[in-house]
Amino acid sequence: MSRQPNKVQIIPLGGMGEIGKNMTVIRYGDEIIVIDSGLMFPEDDMLGIDLVIPDITYLLDNRDLVKAVVLTHGHEDHIGALPYVLKQLNVPVYGTRLTLGILEGRLKENNVPATNLNAVKPGDRIQIGNFKIGFIRVSHSIADSVALSIKTPVGVIVHTGDFKLDQTPVDGKVTDFHRFAELGDQGVLVLLADSTNAERPGYTQSEKSVGVTFDETFRSARERIIIASFSSNIHRIQQAIDTACKYRRKVAILGRSMVNVANIALELGYLNVPEGILIDIDEINNYPSSAVVILTTGSQGEPMSALTRMAMSEHKKVEIVPGDTVIISATPIPGNEKLVSRTIDYLFRQGAEVVYEAASGIHVSGHASQEELKLIQNLIRPKFFIPVHGEYRHLVKHAQLAQSMGLPKENVFVAENGQVLEFTADKGLVAGKVTAGNVLVDGLGVGDVGNIVLRDRRQLSQDGILIIVVTMDKQGGQVAAGPDIVSRGFVYVRESEQLMEDAKERVRQALEKCENNGITEWAAIKSNVRDTLGKYLYERTRRRPMILPIIMEV
Amino acid sequence: MSRQPNKVQIIPLGGMGEIGKNMTVIRYGDEIIVIDSGLMFPEDDMLGIDLVIPDITYLLDNRDLVKAVVLTHGHEDHIGALPYVLKQLNVPVYGTRLTLGILEGRLKENNVPATNLNAVKPGDRIQIGNFKIGFIRVSHSIADSVALSIKTPVGVIVHTGDFKLDQTPVDGKVTDFHRFAELGDQGVLVLLADSTNAERPGYTQSEKSVGVTFDETFRSARERIIIASFSSNIHRIQQAIDTACKYRRKVAILGRSMVNVANIALELGYLNVPEGILIDIDEINNYPSSAVVILTTGSQGEPMSALTRMAMSEHKKVEIVPGDTVIISATPIPGNEKLVSRTIDYLFRQGAEVVYEAASGIHVSGHASQEELKLIQNLIRPKFFIPVHGEYRHLVKHAQLAQSMGLPKENVFVAENGQVLEFTADKGLVAGKVTAGNVLVDGLGVGDVGNIVLRDRRQLSQDGILIIVVTMDKQGGQVAAGPDIVSRGFVYVRESEQLMEDAKERVRQALEKCENNGITEWAAIKSNVRDTLGKYLYERTRRRPMILPIIMEV
Repeated sequence: MSRQPNKVQIIPLGGMGEIGKNMTVIRYGDEIIVIDSGLMFPEDDMLGIDLVIPDITYLLDNRDLVKAVVLTHGHEDHIGALPYVLKQLNVPVYGTRLTLGILEGRLKENNVPATNLNAVKPGDRIQIGNFKIGFIRVSHSIADSVALSIKTPVGVIVHTGDFKLDQTPVDGKVTDFHRFAELGDQGVLVLLADSTNAERPGYTQSEKSVGVTFDETFRSARERIIIASFSSNIHRIQQAIDTACKYRRKVAILGRSMVNVANIALELGYLNVPEGILIDIDEINNYPSSAVVILTTGSQGEPMSALTRMAMSEHKKVEIVPGDTVIISATPIPGNEKLVSRTIDYLFRQGAEVVYEAASGIHVSGHASQEELKLIQNLIRPKFFIPVHGEYRHLVKHAQLAQSMGLPKENVFVAENGQVLEFTADKGLVAGKVTAGNVLVDGLGVGDVGNIVLRDRRQLSQDGILIIVVTMDKQGGQVAAGPDIVSRGFVYVRESEQLMEDAKERVRQALEKCENNGITEWAAIKSNVRDTLGKYLYERTRRRPMILPIIMEV
Repeated sequence: MSRQPNKVQIIPLGGMGEIGKNMTVIRYGDEIIVIDSGLMFPEDDMLGIDLVIPDITYLLDNRDLVKAVVLTHGHEDHIGALPYVLKQLNVPVYGTRLTLGILEGRLKENNVPATNLNAVKPGDRIQIGNFKIGFIRVSHSIADSVALSIKTPVGVIVHTGDFKLDQTPVDGKVTDFHRFAELGDQGVLVLLADSTNAERPGYTQSEKSVGVTFDETFRSARERIIIASFSSNIHRIQQAIDTACKYRRKVAILGRSMVNVANIALELGYLNVPEGILIDIDEINNYPSSAVVILTTGSQGEPMSALTRMAMSEHKKVEIVPGDTVIISATPIPGNEKLVSRTIDYLFRQGAEVVYEAASGIHVSGHASQEELKLIQNLIRPKFFIPVHGEYRHLVKHAQLAQSMGLPKENVFVAENGQVLEFTADKGLVAGKVTAGNVLVDGLGVGDVGNIVLRDRRQLSQDGILIIVVTMDKQGGQVAAGPDIVSRGFVYVRESEQLMEDAKERVRQALEKCENNGITEWAAIKSNVRDTLGKYLYERTRRRPMILPIIMEV
């Protein structure tokens, strides 16, 4: 490459065709910056997996070029992979104070030293090599969120991060429309914008509208109020606390992540709590139930969360009693619908009044709907557009929306993770592909569970396993002991003794047949046993358990 | 019991606190009738289970008393358990013609002879022992649905079945409001009513509104149209065919269940198709794409369905091409959201235009919303009310709705499966409890998979299994061969050789320790191995695979 190349590359390593693990690489010449570094929660078929992070082979292959990671906000799907990334890449990280506060907690949990974290404020601009990066205030469901403007020698790139255009944010800090307008005036080469709600017509409601619903619910509640929400939604927590103050209730915060984030937000001044409002969870019984609010986690029905344990009568400190009002201030993330509805049912069974999704106004999204997305297009007026953060259909809808506003089709890129999108001042194209994909994290293992292990888990989960052990004589090739059959997850053995006996008989016959036919290779014997038994069991049960023949030598 | 008892019992065996496996027992003296006999699809944690049916121990214990099964309509959650029930109980079955037509198919698939099926028409009344049963026409998402009036010596019981009050049904056959009004005039003791949509305010839209959307979509589609819907929704299929006729398109029906139901409906006259409209799927390429509609299954993203296979480019006969319009005329059943959204994404990737949930008017529910539920209360004016068919919260909401209309709280029963609700002419109470619950069907096995097997499957699915085999000398108690370790679903062994070697070493040490300490009982040795290895693996990997020590004797 020449000293002053005329092109810039944008390479999404995550967040394309998926909700989560957002990560975008910007490369100009020999300099790389990384925007966000998020995790994704596993799909249903990723059995036993705890979380999914982006494959960063490309960054490791170019480790000397990576100058910084720049963060847009503190949600898991934007910072959650950083503990894993920073273990392998020692680069400076830039983000707003709350973002870094939350990140520090994550790094600590993962025993990663937080050595090079650099706090910025909305409105700040920093220079990293050839990149001049500006941080632009936006609204989102977590405080201190920013969009990024990245000035390169080829042109300006704007990345919205996750955003909505809340005209009446809880903290009064409105999206920096002026800066977006200014950038649009000066000319923007590429816009990358959040597609999560690209399917939704109209505007996303203001976070403040939830405060109105809180007020109505508090006014009519006669006894205890329990609010479950996302721990990171500081503005939601603020509104709950404000409403509690108004109705002279004390607030106890419960649930590890809620307590953690609230503490960080308090410390950094993002939460304003009047003296004497917060009480310890152990103190709630010192107050009449009409003077208590419990703020807690579990709005997604997570099995180990505080709310779920309360609903199941398994919480050590809080028991749901008739008269309690439980507000679930969230909508189920796709895939969590059944967990959430189970939790609601259990709360009803305990006699609580439950205010949830079906009731309107109890939650608003943090992502821009179609009219907001259009406004951003009109403010930024980019030459090229890349919809980001969304399932494939969200990206398509967002692309169609931009085209309906006049962007030529060839200037809009519905990209895949790993695609190298290359832009000069007047041309954009897909210039190649780099390694990208999912790295599965299971316990302490990062990437040691792949397709083979998952396929085995799926088979085991469906029909269980039968293990056939035979001890064979090394010399004669005769059976010295067994065959024994052990099964797990197949049938309830005590009630299926005959089946298991019959199965053992089939194995014996298969072994005899091998002996008679002079088959002595153990691989062949095993394969014979597996086939015979598999066929027999499928006929008898219509199930296909994993069959595992083990031969021991004596 | 006296010859003419003054009480009647209502015992739900399914459908309470759950969506599915609907079954209600009505007992008067020594006579029992059963309303519906449905299946439920397994919950996420019922790994490997195909379907769930009600536990009918109560019926088997009283087999001589059971006089009939009476069906309200032909959906799986109302007839799907009948093949299993009829294998154990040979009783007459009553239902409308379409219901029995669909049931016959199910019985055939399960090799159960259809010996005693009795067709009735809406408006018919039949006498079964002391029960006089009337069949009342209602609207639902399957044709030929009925509510039931059951006259007993104690009073009249009305069971709505699944219903909505469509004022403009596709076939013009309006709900029999007059009969409901007449029953209300004469006096109804107990009402049981569908709670599925008890959370939804207002009215459920008419099925005809979907026809309007079909029309709009057909008008603008330039090429092929593919419609996925529930195979049992005859009215939806009728509207698709009508719209196809209007726009001069041929219709091919694809997908086993869609073809089956359409054939039954055609035969019985529930579908009206003009000559020459239906074509075979193999003929579609004989027509221009603008003259073709494909009606198919897979609206729930079921992995083996026709639509899903098309979306994944795995269908033998139909390939999705850019320009195709795919209409998914259904909303995801709770739990299927991710499957449906994955299918939509794949269709977009193939270049199809997809019309789905987010677009309004493409599907309407088959269940009554709050205003319809209120109308039924006002028409029937029951003395006692039992909300049925719903998750617990739906039952609670429905109960609250009835109370808000003036029914005293003590006359409303939010019941559990198995509860015996007993009514005299002026009193209702919970009189006891009978066996009720889930029977899990896995392949050919009915009830042979229970909690132990499911617990094993869950553990296997999360972290896999390690099998440790040791051959030991019967006399000396020494190790003759092994230990060998085999793992499945735990780690990718080729990349974890060191871990597996270390694990083997730990097992060796545990065995030595047992020998040194004179531990010779095999149960004790196994438990030692399991504990040592489990602890070690958790420390190294934070995973808890199933550990299965097997000792062979020589």
